[in-house]
Amino acid sequence: MSKLLIVGTVAFDAIETPFGKTDKILGGAATYIGLSSSRFNIDNAIVSIVGEDFPQEHLDLLTGNGINIDGIEIVKGGKTFFWSGKYHNDLNTRDTLETQLNVLADFNPVVPESYKDAEIVMLGNLHPLVQLSVLEQVENPKLVVLDTMNFWMDNTWDDLMKVIAKVDVITINDEEARQLTGEHSLVRAARKIEELGPKYVVIKKGEHGALLFHKEKVFFAPALPLEDVFDPTGAGDTFAGGFVGYLAQTEDISFENMKNAVIYGSGLASFCVEKFGTERMEKLDLDEIDSRMQEFKSLTQFDIKLSPNRAL
Amino acid sequence: MSKLLIVGTVAFDAIETPFGKTDKILGGAATYIGLSSSRFNIDNAIVSIVGEDFPQEHLDLLTGNGINIDGIEIVKGGKTFFWSGKYHNDLNTRDTLETQLNVLADFNPVVPESYKDAEIVMLGNLHPLVQLSVLEQVENPKLVVLDTMNFWMDNTWDDLMKVIAKVDVITINDEEARQLTGEHSLVRAARKIEELGPKYVVIKKGEHGALLFHKEKVFFAPALPLEDVFDPTGAGDTFAGGFVGYLAQTEDISFENMKNAVIYGSGLASFCVEKFGTERMEKLDLDEIDSRMQEFKSLTQFDIKLSPNRAL
Repeated sequence: MSKLLIVGTVAFDAIETPFGKTDKILGGAATYIGLSSSRFNIDNAIVSIVGEDFPQEHLDLLTGNGINIDGIEIVKGGKTFFWSGKYHNDLNTRDTLETQLNVLADFNPVVPESYKDAEIVMLGNLHPLVQLSVLEQVENPKLVVLDTMNFWMDNTWDDLMKVIAKVDVITINDEEARQLTGEHSLVRAARKIEELGPKYVVIKKGEHGALLFHKEKVFFAPALPLEDVFDPTGAGDTFAGGFVGYLAQTEDISFENMKNAVIYGSGLASFCVEKFGTERMEKLDLDEIDSRMQEFKSLTQFDIKLSPNRAL
Repeated sequence: MSKLLIVGTVAFDAIETPFGKTDKILGGAATYIGLSSSRFNIDNAIVSIVGEDFPQEHLDLLTGNGINIDGIEIVKGGKTFFWSGKYHNDLNTRDTLETQLNVLADFNPVVPESYKDAEIVMLGNLHPLVQLSVLEQVENPKLVVLDTMNFWMDNTWDDLMKVIAKVDVITINDEEARQLTGEHSLVRAARKIEELGPKYVVIKKGEHGALLFHKEKVFFAPALPLEDVFDPTGAGDTFAGGFVGYLAQTEDISFENMKNAVIYGSGLASFCVEKFGTERMEKLDLDEIDSRMQEFKSLTQFDIKLSPNRAL
């Protein structure tokens, strides 16, 4: 069974949408990545850091989903990372109301011995030096996937370039791809990003889907058109978890199979947004997933006949 | 051979993009629709109106592409409809600098006898009453497709509702779908639009592709990610022309075949934007089209295995 190592935040979120408001609920990139990747038949572990205020029931939720949490450091007397955000009416944009790094400010990840040989490593959105320190502890993974955001481009450019040079896949959104490269065309942006290191570039376009680039090849996975987007929090990380989870289970990191991984990522993300926080991802069974993937097939597959003569 | 009747503007455009500027060049919705639909093996005609200042060479371009122009009225002493626009740096939005209706102000379309029995009618973007007058002249078409824009929603709502009630397919962009229905979700918007008349709703999302809705079914055709978008003028009409042209040639207006039509529309639109105005569409051969459609297949087709048990 393939091993997937996930490093990222495990946190408290306080979310406000046009539909309601939460107090501190379970959140964090690694949480969403793990709840998504654990749908697959793999051995996944989270490396992270929480405070003493982090409830046992949240830890039990992770282990109950088959996620190894030996790598989650619990800091006595510490407070868990906290993020608070408010979504605009169309749910496409959000404002960060508050960020309290708390224990995350001193996060020095320690990869458990048994996961140093993980085949796939998922570096969730974190300070690039923290991501690099994880890479220094693992032994020759087959695939390293990096997620990042514009904050690190603005504040830690050189460190970001260092870690980008060492990964196989980068996942960012379209605005970030443009900021990273100065290119408006996503095709040109992906090409420039590949020169920085990653052979595969996933550009997430939120409700507009995701693009996968590799040299001259490109694949597009749509986002499922939805009647209601309830809470978009964690959708991007859920996408990433589906992507790496699928690759880990199928043990095939070819471009052809990455297409499927991107489709699975998009499918799982479509569940995440149906309810507040992690609620939908906590109870998601395989029949539901299969049914959703069938919707993705119907959404995109066609059968045009090609012909070089006038009678198309 | 199926007949396609197109009504819309044939015009002069003056276009400014970050890459250059034109004086009066050939434009107009019906021009782009026709140059696109005439790639297919069909009998297509344009009903429109131009002034005496409209050059014979432009008319020859249309007839040279097999388009019947008996229905294009040439007004002695009149001036052709003129539009001037300027695109923003990212080419996604544009400002209209000038619109001179000229002869279009008195357009009373006369459908040629031989096209009154056209199987497919494409009502290009025009005053709803003008679109309605064309419907009154045709004899029981199999499919009527309507394009419209926010201008008519703002200024001629009741007339727009009248014509919408009589068509089978409506094509609009996402902003317009939201304005028309007050819904943000495109799924909900399409549902409301279907209640107004059209059984099929095509929502164009520009660089983000197009959605096709019919009852509970939905299909998505991406826009091809491009290195360079040179001039987006006419892309939407080229899309429409590919859509109706493909349906006319294949003589199959089922939802399944409409998926293919939307893909063809998207494929042809991807050529349109490569050069200024109609230049790319004027010389487009079938080998190029087939090659581009193959790119669309590679862009979207995947083969995930679905399984109800843990071993996905």
